[in-house]
Amino acid sequence: MIRIIGFDADDTLWRNEDIFERAHERYRALLARHHPPAEVDRVLFAAEMRNLGLYGYGVKGFTLSCVEAAVELTQGRVTGPEIAEIIATGREMLAHPVELLAGVAEVVPQLARDYRLLLITKGDLHHQERKVAASGLAAHFHALEIVSEKDSDAYNRIRQRHGLAWEEFVMVGNSLKSDILPVLQLGGAGVHVPYHLTWQHEQVEAAPGDQPRFRRIERLVDLPAVVAGL
Amino acid sequence: MIRIIGFDADDTLWRNEDIFERAHERYRALLARHHPPAEVDRVLFAAEMRNLGLYGYGVKGFTLSCVEAAVELTQGRVTGPEIAEIIATGREMLAHPVELLAGVAEVVPQLARDYRLLLITKGDLHHQERKVAASGLAAHFHALEIVSEKDSDAYNRIRQRHGLAWEEFVMVGNSLKSDILPVLQLGGAGVHVPYHLTWQHEQVEAAPGDQPRFRRIERLVDLPAVVAGL
Repeated sequence: MIRIIGFDADDTLWRNEDIFERAHERYRALLARHHPPAEVDRVLFAAEMRNLGLYGYGVKGFTLSCVEAAVELTQGRVTGPEIAEIIATGREMLAHPVELLAGVAEVVPQLARDYRLLLITKGDLHHQERKVAASGLAAHFHALEIVSEKDSDAYNRIRQRHGLAWEEFVMVGNSLKSDILPVLQLGGAGVHVPYHLTWQHEQVEAAPGDQPRFRRIERLVDLPAVVAGL
Repeated sequence: MIRIIGFDADDTLWRNEDIFERAHERYRALLARHHPPAEVDRVLFAAEMRNLGLYGYGVKGFTLSCVEAAVELTQGRVTGPEIAEIIATGREMLAHPVELLAGVAEVVPQLARDYRLLLITKGDLHHQERKVAASGLAAHFHALEIVSEKDSDAYNRIRQRHGLAWEEFVMVGNSLKSDILPVLQLGGAGVHVPYHLTWQHEQVEAAPGDQPRFRRIERLVDLPAVVAGL
């Protein structure tokens, strides 16, 4: 019944949140003489949320929020070298090698033989394209869809563009909020592959209960069997 | 013969380079006690070019380059309030209202009746989507294609995705380098609508000479007649 599989990218196919977590650690250390870690986290997250509508997702907006929050956290006394370190951290995040998660290198080529695969990701166009190219997986995907927000509108545009029917589509990803809930609501299927880290902004309370078209797997190698059973 | 018209957005449909030019003026003023304007421009442009592969196009990457160059230009003595002003300038650029250029509000709806229109722009996905929404023009375009670089590969992907033939396609834009030359080379037509400002990175020496499928117009209101004659 399933003909088309949509894959999320960050923290589904390759590591992402770890890279942000390490950047947060460096940021806390940089500001440790001014504030305890929890206060640094609080002010930075508030800046990120305040700026999300203007910046969108991705490393560049995160880095700009880090700079802005550093001025705020130091009451304007942040130094040039400290600012340079924040910028350098952002550059390292963007230049970080793509590290595939367990099972991806086997499962994606295997599924590409029997299904049409779409890569559906949100965030920074330039960075996401570079990561897809570096992943070595591009040839297995029929199309790469980079959207600014993974909501019903975005999934509907993808459905139209590829002429797909919801009953033949399953979305696979680590974010209930972005990958699973909007697709289930539209009538598609969803396979949740949790990642050990979830960005605060992506956390949702409600998990889809016993919806017939929802599955959760712990390991990506279980995906082919689960998709075959949908 | 022409069935599909591709429109560039920034400085073709709405003002963009003016907004960058005003940001440059503020940046020069901010650093005036350290360096003359030409030196500020030189170091900032060098930072932008150094970072282009990592950041891609757009306001966020520009703002990050401004921060980086400010640390360099002040030998690390840039102050928190100065950094905050650079960040504020970037935010104002992103929040700037969309100002349509002369003739756009008439010509785009008129052409949409007889041709399929594509909006083809490069840069920041989130910012470009917001500008398209704010422009009031979205309904006239069959599709919005935001690419990370306007080169032959990008135009070929668009051709495939929309099943178009080069002989029925014309691209309209202010940048010879991004809008006109790659399309002419592929066999499409190009209408150059110069803008009074061109970013240094987009400047090219060679204009397409007397190629049969190349036109240049000074005013967008002349576009329907020119397209009809292609």
